[in-house]
Amino acid sequence: MNLFERASGAASAETLFSDQTLIAAMVRFESELALAQAQLNLIPADAAGAIHQACNAFTGNPAAMAEAATLAGTLAVPLVAALRAQVATINPDAARWLHHGSTSQDVLDTALVLCTRAALEALDDEIGSALQHAAALARQHRATPMLARTLLQAAGITTFGYKAALWHHALQRHRSRLQTAARDGLCVSLGGALGNLAAYGESGEALRQTLAERLRLRDPGHCWHTHRQDWLALASEAALLCATLSKIAGDIALLAQTEVAEVREAHVEGRGASSAMPHKRNPVLTLQVLSLTQGAPQRFATLLAAQGQEHERALGGWQSEQAHWPGLFRTAVAATRTLSALLASVEVDTGRCAANIAALQGVTFAEAVAESLSGALGKPAAQSLVAELCQRALREGTPLRDLLSERLSTEPRWTADLGALFNVERAAGASSRQVTMLLGKPH
Amino acid sequence: MNLFERASGAASAETLFSDQTLIAAMVRFESELALAQAQLNLIPADAAGAIHQACNAFTGNPAAMAEAATLAGTLAVPLVAALRAQVATINPDAARWLHHGSTSQDVLDTALVLCTRAALEALDDEIGSALQHAAALARQHRATPMLARTLLQAAGITTFGYKAALWHHALQRHRSRLQTAARDGLCVSLGGALGNLAAYGESGEALRQTLAERLRLRDPGHCWHTHRQDWLALASEAALLCATLSKIAGDIALLAQTEVAEVREAHVEGRGASSAMPHKRNPVLTLQVLSLTQGAPQRFATLLAAQGQEHERALGGWQSEQAHWPGLFRTAVAATRTLSALLASVEVDTGRCAANIAALQGVTFAEAVAESLSGALGKPAAQSLVAELCQRALREGTPLRDLLSERLSTEPRWTADLGALFNVERAAGASSRQVTMLLGKPH
Amino acid sequence: MNLFERASGAASAETLFSDQTLIAAMVRFESELALAQAQLNLIPADAAGAIHQACNAFTGNPAAMAEAATLAGTLAVPLVAALRAQVATINPDAARWLHHGSTSQDVLDTALVLCTRAALEALDDEIGSALQHAAALARQHRATPMLARTLLQAAGITTFGYKAALWHHALQRHRSRLQTAARDGLCVSLGGALGNLAAYGESGEALRQTLAERLRLRDPGHCWHTHRQDWLALASEAALLCATLSKIAGDIALLAQTEVAEVREAHVEGRGASSAMPHKRNPVLTLQVLSLTQGAPQRFATLLAAQGQEHERALGGWQSEQAHWPGLFRTAVAATRTLSALLASVEVDTGRCAANIAALQGVTFAEAVAESLSGALGKPAAQSLVAELCQRALREGTPLRDLLSERLSTEPRWTADLGALFNVERAAGASSRQVTMLLGKPH
Amino acid sequence: MNLFERASGAASAETLFSDQTLIAAMVRFESELALAQAQLNLIPADAAGAIHQACNAFTGNPAAMAEAATLAGTLAVPLVAALRAQVATINPDAARWLHHGSTSQDVLDTALVLCTRAALEALDDEIGSALQHAAALARQHRATPMLARTLLQAAGITTFGYKAALWHHALQRHRSRLQTAARDGLCVSLGGALGNLAAYGESGEALRQTLAERLRLRDPGHCWHTHRQDWLALASEAALLCATLSKIAGDIALLAQTEVAEVREAHVEGRGASSAMPHKRNPVLTLQVLSLTQGAPQRFATLLAAQGQEHERALGGWQSEQAHWPGLFRTAVAATRTLSALLASVEVDTGRCAANIAALQGVTFAEAVAESLSGALGKPAAQSLVAELCQRALREGTPLRDLLSERLSTEPRWTADLGALFNVERAAGASSRQVTMLLGKPH
Repeated sequence: MNLFERASGAASAETLFSDQTLIAAMVRFESELALAQAQLNLIPADAAGAIHQACNAFTGNPAAMAEAATLAGTLAVPLVAALRAQVATINPDAARWLHHGSTSQDVLDTALVLCTRAALEALDDEIGSALQHAAALARQHRATPMLARTLLQAAGITTFGYKAALWHHALQRHRSRLQTAARDGLCVSLGGALGNLAAYGESGEALRQTLAERLRLRDPGHCWHTHRQDWLALASEAALLCATLSKIAGDIALLAQTEVAEVREAHVEGRGASSAMPHKRNPVLTLQVLSLTQGAPQRFATLLAAQGQEHERALGGWQSEQAHWPGLFRTAVAATRTLSALLASVEVDTGRCAANIAALQGVTFAEAVAESLSGALGKPAAQSLVAELCQRALREGTPLRDLLSERLSTEPRWTADLGALFNVERAAGASSRQVTMLLGKPH
Repeated sequence: MNLFERASGAASAETLFSDQTLIAAMVRFESELALAQAQLNLIPADAAGAIHQACNAFTGNPAAMAEAATLAGTLAVPLVAALRAQVATINPDAARWLHHGSTSQDVLDTALVLCTRAALEALDDEIGSALQHAAALARQHRATPMLARTLLQAAGITTFGYKAALWHHALQRHRSRLQTAARDGLCVSLGGALGNLAAYGESGEALRQTLAERLRLRDPGHCWHTHRQDWLALASEAALLCATLSKIAGDIALLAQTEVAEVREAHVEGRGASSAMPHKRNPVLTLQVLSLTQGAPQRFATLLAAQGQEHERALGGWQSEQAHWPGLFRTAVAATRTLSALLASVEVDTGRCAANIAALQGVTFAEAVAESLSGALGKPAAQSLVAELCQRALREGTPLRDLLSERLSTEPRWTADLGALFNVERAAGASSRQVTMLLGKPH
Repeated sequence: MNLFERASGAASAETLFSDQTLIAAMVRFESELALAQAQLNLIPADAAGAIHQACNAFTGNPAAMAEAATLAGTLAVPLVAALRAQVATINPDAARWLHHGSTSQDVLDTALVLCTRAALEALDDEIGSALQHAAALARQHRATPMLARTLLQAAGITTFGYKAALWHHALQRHRSRLQTAARDGLCVSLGGALGNLAAYGESGEALRQTLAERLRLRDPGHCWHTHRQDWLALASEAALLCATLSKIAGDIALLAQTEVAEVREAHVEGRGASSAMPHKRNPVLTLQVLSLTQGAPQRFATLLAAQGQEHERALGGWQSEQAHWPGLFRTAVAATRTLSALLASVEVDTGRCAANIAALQGVTFAEAVAESLSGALGKPAAQSLVAELCQRALREGTPLRDLLSERLSTEPRWTADLGALFNVERAAGASSRQVTMLLGKPH
Repeated sequence: MNLFERASGAASAETLFSDQTLIAAMVRFESELALAQAQLNLIPADAAGAIHQACNAFTGNPAAMAEAATLAGTLAVPLVAALRAQVATINPDAARWLHHGSTSQDVLDTALVLCTRAALEALDDEIGSALQHAAALARQHRATPMLARTLLQAAGITTFGYKAALWHHALQRHRSRLQTAARDGLCVSLGGALGNLAAYGESGEALRQTLAERLRLRDPGHCWHTHRQDWLALASEAALLCATLSKIAGDIALLAQTEVAEVREAHVEGRGASSAMPHKRNPVLTLQVLSLTQGAPQRFATLLAAQGQEHERALGGWQSEQAHWPGLFRTAVAATRTLSALLASVEVDTGRCAANIAALQGVTFAEAVAESLSGALGKPAAQSLVAELCQRALREGTPLRDLLSERLSTEPRWTADLGALFNVERAAGASSRQVTMLLGKPH
């Protein structure tokens, strides 16, 4: 992880796939494999005990392992060699039973599954925390009027609470989707050299099942060395989540613009200081979420593009998948954590929200006004009239209500309840209602 | 769709998102919206009737619509204008009720959902057909010995049936995943201009539900104009499927190489002819699957990268999503159809499979041989010995069995059941067994 | 090209790689190949004449060609077959000399080169037009003060002209880069079936050179069937250009936001109308540039990912490259054309620019103020003081100048030329100066 | 860099963008900026001296800097603060002149440029080394007959030297392209807070030029904070190079397949050992090149997608670019180094090449045979006849020459010089000739 990534807040997720974490997961696979094999009488119980003991005591040297792996072509070779040497010091006869019938892809895939499970647990926690902050914002600002914007143009009146409620709902969906994907995708990998469990005779399926139980992973019922759709789907969910994080942070960035100023990150000493401009306060958490999530679509595309994995084990694709996998999950965890901090930090300037609405001279009510005149004028004529009055209101700085009132006085046929039409709270009501639908009744 | 795409077989999926299909889906939305509104007494029943009648009779001019949309910024404006004019010819008072309370994103999103539903139905059919062919191959070649290859090196003996059974299983998983994703992601879109159903007062939720029922889509319970995770997940599933199609076709391509020649596409007059080389027969279906699927990861990344959709409607991201969406699904359907044809066409040369095994002088049994000697020699020494004999066998063109037998004769302590160890059918047994596990008992 | 792409303005570039354009380019290759071969006495002159005549008269049926290509695996087979039949009607003996010694990749690659050359010429024209509009904006608004924004926060004072001058400079660089890339990458492709010109004996190199001259393409001096770096670099330049188009349109989108309103697209009847909101005027050209360019990074990534082209001709990668190539260039041309229209349409509201500056109470001068106090206070203390006064100015709505003046009156040691420091025109001077540097002296 | 990346050989390039390297480059910018400013009398000479002295002595704490940057939003703030403190210990008055008139993007962009220059120098060296090995292979095997393969089917006879000569040519083009891109893209970044050099009055341009000279970088003549096309083009060249590395390694992987076996990596003790299969020797260097390069297209797409950089400094895009930049260049350097080792290691089994040709019963001569019969039979009939004989030759295991000879004996009108047609060396001649063209005369 480079300095730039850490400066964007990714350091908080660094340990999830660190060298030590990964080696520990590999060692755990070998230990549990031996114990499972002993359980099924595939290897002697004392051999399994020695292997288990050696694994518990093992501390790998990542730099040496990486270098040896560069020669061997896989991390499994130096790991198994080092572990075997350690087992032999405890019980020479046990050494041959280490990694028995297994293959490098079994240990590496399962190790990455174990690390990913921890990453998903961390992610679930972070989403949970973000959900609380989003819900609080939604409830607190259920009825706070704010301009709705479509195509970056003011379009009418919504509430900040409704925006936050939609953020909340989206995050909730991601949490649920990730949990489902975890159930499907966190599988033990056990196939042996050819993916057919040949070394275990008729006990292969039982061994895979026992190993799955020991590791609390799913037994997929088959070997997935080169058919990885349910595993990849985990990465897809992480990428989809990042898209939502980016959407939320993007909205906050737009609301926090100097000229909009409806939302800001709470002030923390030193946060967002500029090296050159003393008056600035940069939206730092927003920036970090945007920066962290921006590579997610391509990271996932890299994983997808690596799936043309040849025959029974890939030459390049699998290894590339491994190399790129951690970055996506680390990023997702760090970005969710940062978004959670951002949601906790967000301050809404309700006065500015109201002022931005007022500055539009009531043209935000245009749709409802046109609708109310449609009966008398027909829809196209009503829309034309209102569009013309809106342009005048903005050009002249005169409230639309006044212009319309003036015009109505000359057209006795037309009637409109101006008080009801030009009512910000009433206009905001539709969005408040949605918050209630999405989050339940106010307390 | 350009000539190159059609030459790769994509033409078969061209109508799924054609101009006419898309316009028909938009018109259907407007028609059903009016009928649903009449059902809830939101608009007069005769207005809905006129709208329905006009919609039934409507035939849009795609070129004119596209040009008008370039000016308006959305296809919905010219569509609604043209439809409204047509409604007015039937019932002038009804015209104002067309598109009532709705917005361009409602009609365009829902129209794309309807087209995508049809595409997913086509995809389900094609996967179904591919599954039949994969299952037939797996059953027929359950026990056909074939080299297993890892890192593109011969590694041992598997069966072609096991490869096909894993293809079958993966395709089945994709089918099931796509069905689940369709249930979640094929939702009606109805939010109105600001996404809060404001124009419908307290009837908004009921209207969305009624409309969903009329269109046989899911009512998501909220507006998803700029939070699109469950919709995007459909595209993710299509991209994941393409990865598997590419994996399968890639394996067939490797097996069909001149020097391997274990598999070929059945000969069809004119298929795979070379413009310059009369003796060649190119693996055309394989080529097309590989070509069609290669862009899928990036297509999906484009959709993901478009999700930072601003506020209540995006400026650029949503429109980019629309433009890129059809290509991914068309490609997935066409590639699945072509893969199905490929699986139906695949011929396995069992003689060549056996010859390729035989050419390796029995070194494919090395793992089992080493395992059987581990008891006497210890695992490292057994592996070293076997590796050395394997190199000799290949260098000298002498069967490993003979070299081993010679060696065993000098080491009375070592014993090995050579007949059992060097037995292709026995070696293939582990893979046959997996086919049975995956596909059920042989008939 | 689907309806959504055309609605975003891509239709204007549709003919560049249309079926007819592509077939004409293929036919042109065959015609010029024969004439070049006759020129070098490789085939009889009358055969070349007949081929040339047949090519001139040829009109292919794209649908039939696509279908036949699906069987053959390449468009070249049905094209050559149809052309050969036509040649035979003119001169039966000539038919065998059509496509003599060539291969499908020669004709298809060269045809795509010819189409791409036309696309690049169109692109050059569009960039030229955009440059004129950008230069006009830069000159007209050389000294128009506008807020500079960093991290979406107001940071100081620049001029709109400087923004436009940087747009101009970037577009000029792209034009120049594209021209260089065209010189390197628009090469004739001629290698024959194996890429070694075997069919032409010692005349191969001369033939390639002659053919290049006839087609006004570069002779690369070798066969590039599966080594395509200079060709791909053309696509890279198109993608880089799209990134700049997106940057420019993005800035305009931000400036055109309701709350900023410093820039707008000129009003054209019907442009940017909303289907629901009569007062809205959506930034349609901006939207289209953003929508068109958003897929470019991934389109280029697809082309790059297709470059692992096997041996002497690829199975899948080359064909995928062909399928995805046109979309990138069509998009680049259409987006540049739209950007040019956008730049021609942009209206700057100088009053609003000034008002947005004024609303910040002079905090935009903070950096210069802090610098001027650094001598007396030291930099950190000066920055702290100014930061504190800036926060007060914004909170209380009091000009920073007044707050500073008040403070200076209590600190006789400190001196500052407030008139010079708080001078918008003077602050804008640095940016005006850059416009002059970039575009030359004002006229 | 995670354990998987290091296992694929990326560790060798780890220092190029390490924390220490990056911090040193940032410090160098500040030091040279001060010296350049003193040179132009913008700051006192003794202040510059103190800054230079402090910079020379500075050793940053990356972990602390990253953490502080997470708060500040940029690495520049903690770096400048730490450096300023150090300057103050030497000369308190000098501290205010550190980073004078500059901004965080100036120092970070320039620092990344300096690191990238070193990476490009390393890359140039590695390409140079790979070129030597490729040239040696091309010369040594100029005339070594090998099957040419198109669409993964044997197509005729080429030479291994020609393949290697094309690799050589492509690498040479990349080297030349990278050198050109470096000249354009390795620019100093100096713009100040708003990108208009405001703090330096009329000396801004001279300062940028002086600083460029001191750092031996190009002075671009303008500020490139948010217009980064020439900088991005460097990354494009790195990605294009990776595509070629992948193509070359892919060809070697195919040639090294057990069933082809024409090429292998030289044996090194322990290289490519399997954890389960003692007889295997995996193509480890090949694997590493394929694994390292596979993410390059998407990495570049991420950089491209980050270019919509807002106004005068981006919120997210620039920071994402920084985070993803090092990975692409590190990968390119490591993959080139590994490819160079691979080319140095490649052993060609000329006997196997010949055997693979012989196994095809002469059908590889089909194109020339058909051509020679075209005069008598017409092209279509000649092609049909030859295709039929080829199928028979392969089916029956009889040389095509014998079948043709038999047939010729019954058709006195047809003549063919069988000895010349069925001559492997003669067939290989066209490719040998290309090697000479590409690499110059044999020595």
